[in-house]
Amino acid sequence: MSIFVKNAWYVAAWSTEIDDQLRRFTILDEHIVMFRKSDGSVAALEDRCPHRHLPLSKGKRIGDTVQCGYHGLTFDGTTGMCTRVPGQTNLPRSAYVTSYAIEERHGIVWIWMGDPETADPSTIFDMPQFTDPNWAVHHGDALHVQSNYLNVAENLVDPAHVSFVHPTTLGNAASENVPVHVQTEGEAIVAWRWIRDAEPIGFFKNFGDFDGNVDRWHYYYLYTPCTAMIDFGSAPAEAAIGEDERDKGVRIFALHFITPVTETYSIDRWMHVRNTALDDPQAEETMDKMFRTAFQEDKEILEAVQAEENRPAKRRPIRIAIDKGPLVYRKRINELLEKERTEDLASDPSPAFVYHD
Amino acid sequence: MSIFVKNAWYVAAWSTEIDDQLRRFTILDEHIVMFRKSDGSVAALEDRCPHRHLPLSKGKRIGDTVQCGYHGLTFDGTTGMCTRVPGQTNLPRSAYVTSYAIEERHGIVWIWMGDPETADPSTIFDMPQFTDPNWAVHHGDALHVQSNYLNVAENLVDPAHVSFVHPTTLGNAASENVPVHVQTEGEAIVAWRWIRDAEPIGFFKNFGDFDGNVDRWHYYYLYTPCTAMIDFGSAPAEAAIGEDERDKGVRIFALHFITPVTETYSIDRWMHVRNTALDDPQAEETMDKMFRTAFQEDKEILEAVQAEENRPAKRRPIRIAIDKGPLVYRKRINELLEKERTEDLASDPSPAFVYHD
Amino acid sequence: MSIFVKNAWYVAAWSTEIDDQLRRFTILDEHIVMFRKSDGSVAALEDRCPHRHLPLSKGKRIGDTVQCGYHGLTFDGTTGMCTRVPGQTNLPRSAYVTSYAIEERHGIVWIWMGDPETADPSTIFDMPQFTDPNWAVHHGDALHVQSNYLNVAENLVDPAHVSFVHPTTLGNAASENVPVHVQTEGEAIVAWRWIRDAEPIGFFKNFGDFDGNVDRWHYYYLYTPCTAMIDFGSAPAEAAIGEDERDKGVRIFALHFITPVTETYSIDRWMHVRNTALDDPQAEETMDKMFRTAFQEDKEILEAVQAEENRPAKRRPIRIAIDKGPLVYRKRINELLEKERTEDLASDPSPAFVYHD
Repeated sequence: MSIFVKNAWYVAAWSTEIDDQLRRFTILDEHIVMFRKSDGSVAALEDRCPHRHLPLSKGKRIGDTVQCGYHGLTFDGTTGMCTRVPGQTNLPRSAYVTSYAIEERHGIVWIWMGDPETADPSTIFDMPQFTDPNWAVHHGDALHVQSNYLNVAENLVDPAHVSFVHPTTLGNAASENVPVHVQTEGEAIVAWRWIRDAEPIGFFKNFGDFDGNVDRWHYYYLYTPCTAMIDFGSAPAEAAIGEDERDKGVRIFALHFITPVTETYSIDRWMHVRNTALDDPQAEETMDKMFRTAFQEDKEILEAVQAEENRPAKRRPIRIAIDKGPLVYRKRINELLEKERTEDLASDPSPAFVYHD
Repeated sequence: MSIFVKNAWYVAAWSTEIDDQLRRFTILDEHIVMFRKSDGSVAALEDRCPHRHLPLSKGKRIGDTVQCGYHGLTFDGTTGMCTRVPGQTNLPRSAYVTSYAIEERHGIVWIWMGDPETADPSTIFDMPQFTDPNWAVHHGDALHVQSNYLNVAENLVDPAHVSFVHPTTLGNAASENVPVHVQTEGEAIVAWRWIRDAEPIGFFKNFGDFDGNVDRWHYYYLYTPCTAMIDFGSAPAEAAIGEDERDKGVRIFALHFITPVTETYSIDRWMHVRNTALDDPQAEETMDKMFRTAFQEDKEILEAVQAEENRPAKRRPIRIAIDKGPLVYRKRINELLEKERTEDLASDPSPAFVYHD
Repeated sequence: MSIFVKNAWYVAAWSTEIDDQLRRFTILDEHIVMFRKSDGSVAALEDRCPHRHLPLSKGKRIGDTVQCGYHGLTFDGTTGMCTRVPGQTNLPRSAYVTSYAIEERHGIVWIWMGDPETADPSTIFDMPQFTDPNWAVHHGDALHVQSNYLNVAENLVDPAHVSFVHPTTLGNAASENVPVHVQTEGEAIVAWRWIRDAEPIGFFKNFGDFDGNVDRWHYYYLYTPCTAMIDFGSAPAEAAIGEDERDKGVRIFALHFITPVTETYSIDRWMHVRNTALDDPQAEETMDKMFRTAFQEDKEILEAVQAEENRPAKRRPIRIAIDKGPLVYRKRINELLEKERTEDLASDPSPAFVYHD
C-alpha cells in the first residue's frame, strides 16, 4: 500500500530551480525530468525511456521534445507521446512517458502527482498576501531532511515542541505549559496558542524591537497533505490586542511546502510573508538566519526519529495531550490513502458484480 | 530467534567512558543512554522516548532525570518512570523507559541485559589478583571488530590459530603441532597447552628477558557468554616448573570482555594483570603495543570471516580436531539461547494446559 | 534461478594480471584465488577455506599449495584437495576447495565456471589473426561497469546506439536511420550495416587518413554468453568495395570479453586486432584513447540503465525494430540457463520414475 497521497498538488521546485536544461527531480519516489519549454512553461515527464529505461534526463533536449540518449526515441514535452523511433516508421502506442500536470504561481512550481484529468488548479494553496503591497514575500531555502514526510509535517502542527527544540529562537520556557488549542477549519488543521504578557522569544528580540513584555501567538495551519502555514507574531502586552487583531502586531506567515522524495527523505521549501520591514533586505537576511538555525534543530530531531523508526519496533509509541494536531493529521492522511487505494480497486469493476441497495 | 543471551552480565564500558554527559551505547542491538548520577553511580536507560521515539541521549540531563529533547517528557534515571509530561498533569502508566541493572567494579561497568529482577551481582567475573598488591592491573583499549561476537569469542578459546595469525608476537612455528587440551571447569571452557623447551615467542623476547629456551604455557578460559581470560607465560626451560607452578614464571592474564553491539559488530575491551614489572609504566606501553599488533591481526581475520558469512552459504563449514573449545562454546550458547526462548514462551502458560508426571 | 550460465569459458584476467602472489578475483559472484604455480601455469581455487571460511587469499602460498591464514589448513593448487590439517594426522574427505579448469592463450586467461569434467578447450574463442603477421594484436584495458552483464553484452550487438551515444567517436548522424541486418551464424549473433558514401566518423578521421567520403561497415558478432567481436572499418567510397572485400579497407576487430562479477557489476576487457599501422605504438595509443572515450560513454548509459532496473518495475520495457540482435541474445541466454537448471534437476533421477515413449 502506497504511503503517498497521489491525488494532490505538491511543490516540485521554486521557479528559479527550473531552466532550459533537463533536470531530474524525485517526488513521491518517482523520477521526473523537468525543463522550460520555448514558451517558458514547465514540462514534467516521467524520467525513464520506456524502451531500455535510460533516464530521459541523460538525453538531449530538441526544441520542446526530449531525445533519449541511448537509441534516440523522442518524446513530446507536453503530452509525453513518442514522436520518433529511429530505425522504424511506425510509433507503437505504448511508446510514451507519463506527463504531469504543472501549475506555476508566485515563483512556485506545483505538480499534480495523480491522474492529470483530475488535477484542479483551484485547489492549490494560495493567500491574498502574496499579491498585497502591504506585505513582503520572501523565498527562503530548501531544507533536505532524511525523514518521512509525515514526521516533517506533523512537526509543523505541533506547537509544543518549540519550547524544547528551539529554546533560543522560536520558543522559551514561558510556553512549556501553555495549553494548545486544536480545531479543524475546512481543509486545515489548526493548532494555536497565545502566550500573554511574557518575555519576547529570541526571534522577536532580534527582530521586533520590543521594550517590555509581549503577547505572542502561534497559529499552525496544516493543509493535507503537505503544506503548512504558521502565523506567528507579537504585540506589546500593554496593547492587549484581541485574537482577531493580529495584523496590529508584528505578524509573520512562515510557509512550508513539503515534498516527499522517498519514504525516508523529504524536502521542506520554506518562505515567509510579513507585514513589517517591507523593503528591508537586511531584515530578510536576519530572519532567514534565525529560521535556518531553528530548522537545523528540527532536522536533527526529525532525522533521529526516523533512524529509530527504521529499526524494528518494540513498543507502540504512546500518545499524549499535545498530540491532538498530529493525530488528526495522520487520521486524515490515512483516509486519503484508503480512498485512493479503494478507488484504484474499483476503477475496473467486473461486470459480473451487481450491487443492489 | 535472538542470537544474543540476554540474562547475562556484559561489560558496558570502562568506568572512564562514562561521565555526567548523556552518552549512547549500543549493546545486544539495543540503544542505551548512560550517565553518572549525582551520587556517582551509573544510570542506564533505554535510549528512546516512548512518545515520538527520539533518543533520550539527544535530550538534556536535569539532575538525575533525563528530559526528552523533542517534547520534554522526563524520566527518572534510576527507575525509568516518567516524571513529567508537559501540557498535561497525569502520567500515563505506559510512559516509561527500560532501566538496566548496573554494577561497577575495578574500573569496569557491567550491565545486565535481561530482567533486572534476575540480575545477581555475585555471578560477575572476578579474580583475586584485581586487588592483590603482588599483581599489576592495567586497562588496555577497546578493539572494534566488524564480526559476530561468537567469532570473536571462539577465537579466544582457540590456541591453534596463534601460530598462523600471530607469528611475530604471540606464536611461532614451534607450537604448530603441539596438541591442545580442552576441558570444562564449571562455568569455564579451558583450552590449554604447554610448549616445553622452545625459543621464546616475540612477546617474551621483548618482555621476559630470557637467555635460552623456555617452557611456555597458554591457558584459554572462556566464560559464557562473553568473557575470556588467557593465562600465558614463560619460565626458563631449565627450571622445568610444574603445571601448577606458573606463578614462578613471568605470568600474564590477558582479559577480554566482548560486548556484542549488533549481529555483525562487537567490541572487545582488553586489559591485563601481571606478576612482573609492577611499577613500570614503560612495560605496560610495550605490552599494549604488542597486544595491539596481535589484535589487529585477529581483527583482519575475524572481519574477513564475517564478510564470508554474510554471503549465502554454499557448504557447511567442516570441523577439525582443534575446534574442540569453540564447539563446546557454541553448544553452550545454543543451550542458553534455547533456555531463554522457552522461558519466554512459558512465561504466560495457558490455564487449559495441565501436565501430569 | 541463477542468472549466470555456468558451463562456459569466461575471461578471468589478462595474463599480466596474474603472478606468483595470491590474488582474489570475483567471477559469477564466486570468489576465486589465482596465482601462477612454479611451472608458470595458473592455479584457480575457491577462495574460502572450508573450515572457518577465511578467504585463502588472506593466507600464504607455500610452493604450489595455499596455506590458510587462520589455522594453517593447506590446499593443493592443482586439485584443491587438503594436504595438511595442523593438529591432526587424518585429512577429512570434505576438506577440499573447488579447483577451476583454466586455459591460457594469447595473453588471456580463460576459466570454466561449470563442472571441470565438461570443460572443452576447443570451444574457446579464437581467431586466426591472433597469430597472423599481417595483423597487429593489442590489449587495451578493463572497463568496470556497475551493470548486469546482459546489459553490457546487449550493447555490443546493438549498432543503433552508436549514433546517439558515441556521436564524436564511433558514430554520427549519417547512420541514424540506416537499417540494421541481423542474422545468426552458428554460435554467433551478427548485426551489421554498411553506411555507403558518407563522411568518415571521428575514429577514422583521426586514424584512417581519408580525403573524401568513405564506405563504412560495422559487423557486431556476439558469442554467447560473453564474447563480442566488432568488425568495423572504412574504405574510400570511390573504391566501392564489396561486402566480402573488407580486408581492402582499414579494418579493425574490437574484441570485448565480458566477465560477470556480480549480478550488477561486470568487467569488460577490451582489445583490438588491426590490419594497418602494424608497428606503430602511437597508433595504438591514439586508438586506445578513442576507445576509452567511447567506452566511458557506454559505461555512463549502462550504469544509469542498471540504476533504473534496480527500482521496482512499473511497466514492461517496450521492444522496437532495432532490438532484433539483443532479443535473439536474451533468448539464447534464457535457453542456456533453462538447460542448466533442468540438467541440475535431472542429475539425480529417482529410480521410481520411469518414462515410456
